Amino acid sequence: MGYLPVDTIRKRKNGTPHTEDEISWFIKSYMKDEIPDYQMSAWLMAANFNPLTIDETFFLTREMKNSGEYLKFDSGVPTIDKHSTGGVGDKASLILGPMAAACGLQVPMITGRGLGHTGGTTDKLESIPGYNTALNLKDFKNIVEKNGISIIGQTESLCPADRRIYGLRDVTATVESIPLICASILSKKWAEGIEGLVMDVKCGSGAFMKSEKDAENLCKNLIEIGARCGLKVVALLTNMDQPLGRCVGNALEIKETLEVLGGDKETYADTRELSIELTAHMLCLSDKSKTVEDCREKARDSLDSGKALQVFQSLVELHGGDLSKLPEAKTKTPLLAKEKGYITAIDTYEVGMAGVLIGAGRKNKSDQLDLNSGFYFHKKLGDHVQKGEPLLTIHCDDGEKLKNSMDRLYSAIEIEHKKINLKPLVQSVFGVSQ
Amino acid sequence: MGYLPVDTIRKRKNGTPHTEDEISWFIKSYMKDEIPDYQMSAWLMAANFNPLTIDETFFLTREMKNSGEYLKFDSGVPTIDKHSTGGVGDKASLILGPMAAACGLQVPMITGRGLGHTGGTTDKLESIPGYNTALNLKDFKNIVEKNGISIIGQTESLCPADRRIYGLRDVTATVESIPLICASILSKKWAEGIEGLVMDVKCGSGAFMKSEKDAENLCKNLIEIGARCGLKVVALLTNMDQPLGRCVGNALEIKETLEVLGGDKETYADTRELSIELTAHMLCLSDKSKTVEDCREKARDSLDSGKALQVFQSLVELHGGDLSKLPEAKTKTPLLAKEKGYITAIDTYEVGMAGVLIGAGRKNKSDQLDLNSGFYFHKKLGDHVQKGEPLLTIHCDDGEKLKNSMDRLYSAIEIEHKKINLKPLVQSVFGVSQ
Repeated sequence: MGYLPVDTIRKRKNGTPHTEDEISWFIKSYMKDEIPDYQMSAWLMAANFNPLTIDETFFLTREMKNSGEYLKFDSGVPTIDKHSTGGVGDKASLILGPMAAACGLQVPMITGRGLGHTGGTTDKLESIPGYNTALNLKDFKNIVEKNGISIIGQTESLCPADRRIYGLRDVTATVESIPLICASILSKKWAEGIEGLVMDVKCGSGAFMKSEKDAENLCKNLIEIGARCGLKVVALLTNMDQPLGRCVGNALEIKETLEVLGGDKETYADTRELSIELTAHMLCLSDKSKTVEDCREKARDSLDSGKALQVFQSLVELHGGDLSKLPEAKTKTPLLAKEKGYITAIDTYEVGMAGVLIGAGRKNKSDQLDLNSGFYFHKKLGDHVQKGEPLLTIHCDDGEKLKNSMDRLYSAIEIEHKKINLKPLVQSVFGVSQ
Repeated sequence: MGYLPVDTIRKRKNGTPHTEDEISWFIKSYMKDEIPDYQMSAWLMAANFNPLTIDETFFLTREMKNSGEYLKFDSGVPTIDKHSTGGVGDKASLILGPMAAACGLQVPMITGRGLGHTGGTTDKLESIPGYNTALNLKDFKNIVEKNGISIIGQTESLCPADRRIYGLRDVTATVESIPLICASILSKKWAEGIEGLVMDVKCGSGAFMKSEKDAENLCKNLIEIGARCGLKVVALLTNMDQPLGRCVGNALEIKETLEVLGGDKETYADTRELSIELTAHMLCLSDKSKTVEDCREKARDSLDSGKALQVFQSLVELHGGDLSKLPEAKTKTPLLAKEKGYITAIDTYEVGMAGVLIGAGRKNKSDQLDLNSGFYFHKKLGDHVQKGEPLLTIHCDDGEKLKNSMDRLYSAIEIEHKKINLKPLVQSVFGVSQ
């Protein structure tokens, strides 16, 4: 087609727009190994300085989606998914997926693994002995159609171009580009065969996006580019200034999931609230005639009736998992407050990294997890604490790792003699008419 | 040493300064293949957007120079070289090198090959049958010490880091960064063991730097970074709105070289003028007590006395070359003016690319040259021409190539009914006190 990689890189560098055809050629050639990694990474860095336009991002998204297999659902059942930009203690997918399915949606949920300070839904599910996250797309689709929901990990056959490019971005400091983030998320979600997507864009000390402005920008771009892809997108900007709920760590988060699905309203109020909000927006996407409040009601009912729990249990069963064998650490060590006062800040990134130290998360992709390791937070932001009272309990059987994590946790939690105003959990909602 | 490549790339991206130690580690690790090309190219692109500081450029220059062998001259003879950013028809090195040597300097000149629209001194010398441009550094040094000058091509052992990085920049659109250009030039020149460098920075339609501001900036950076390397640098900003002299093409340029060295004052007045100016500044660098005018006088005398020609002849002889066997094209075809008027513009880049079409230059590094192909310009900028009068003569034995080049040459030369004001050949001089 007469393109030269160096010209395409130079265009990106100078901000000269790429054509549809050029982006298609660039990605296809890369996947055929006709363009080497060193040219792709130069282009990616140029794209970090001269961001792709909406048009260009759409072309890239489509090309990445078309680089592998993708699903289509023909049953007529509204097919909606949710995706989060990643947080600490965020088990909402595990709760809202079954809730949405209990309310009649189809949820084909392909999830990621934890990396760095954030956890991953795939890892959490794998803490359930026997749960198979590596189904092929056909079996995955069958379970979605039968059970309303299946949750698996990334598959090789879906969006291989995104996987290769993301791997390169990760090691070339080119992750932080909103158009590239949009293309990566939307190509994978589009390939799931969904018609609507609720995005949970996290903002705060435990989020990838530290600034609210960037997070808002990401929300707006996801909606606009999603629309170009034919995906109805609603984006919630939610607060991640502390871990969600009380549990951080894989098996521990499954326990919290079961308790919230079991109808607990008080202990994990924020986890319950976020799950209801996200489910409500998923339901709204599938039926424009309903108000968000109608949908909240329906979402709550799926929890309180026990229907969502039933869906979760059959989900686990269909994937070969056995909830009765959930692992648990033998050693539970409290982290005691060194002074009395109010908890005024939790550096949630540091909590996540303390989780990495005890094997609840991984620093490198190849790290092994301790699926039973984790934290249980007795105290949350704004709570009052007495000197010597437990702030949290560390579940970890390795004494050395435990010690390292305790130091990191102490310095992550601030106690002061003042009350604070908490930010709302859902800070704003983008892309919805109501 | 605890560095991570991705952190170094992110620092460049964010404009966070690198330490001396970090740059040293980055380049050494790259040369040991511990850092892959795709991380280097991301860093290079980031460096195109967030230019290296003077300090960082100096550290990079030194590291690249130290990546291979480098020369040292102990004889006490002032050792000075000249380097040009590349032009069309620019054979000045071949003339001023012998001139400077005839005036008592040592000139260890390691030159490049032509690429794209520009020619290369190495190629020009290779049009002399037998001339060996591939001497090892020991033989090169011997000839410099014996003859005052040797001219060879790039060697594998000198600045291997620059060669690898330049190769990567070439295919990732990351050439156009002034600090990276400075580091590339100065590392190689520093490795020659010189104490002073005269830079000919070209500006105009046949130059890499199209804008005068960029060219000035390059001059100033070369001087400042050169000083950090212990190199005295003078930079002349010279005009490249038309080919230098009358000949473009390898063997043809050797002929012009011989005529200017032979004392011709009129035919190739601009080639002579530039050679005298550059030689004069080389002489000034070696002896601060002399004025530029003193040095011009000395330079002119080296031409008019025939001494420079003798040095050139012995240079060719010492390299095994035979000037009596210079190749010549059999077919010489005039390009006739289609109308009468004044020559108001010559798109010199296009002239260079027309040269590529007839084999006088190469588009890709692997292209073969026709060393006897070239152009002889009868008319230069500002000259009056009658309809049907030859503008230039094309030396080319291949009818097909000839035809293609003629179309390109016609559209490169503008003839109008108005006189124009020519820019001076030397537009400004930087880094000299007089």
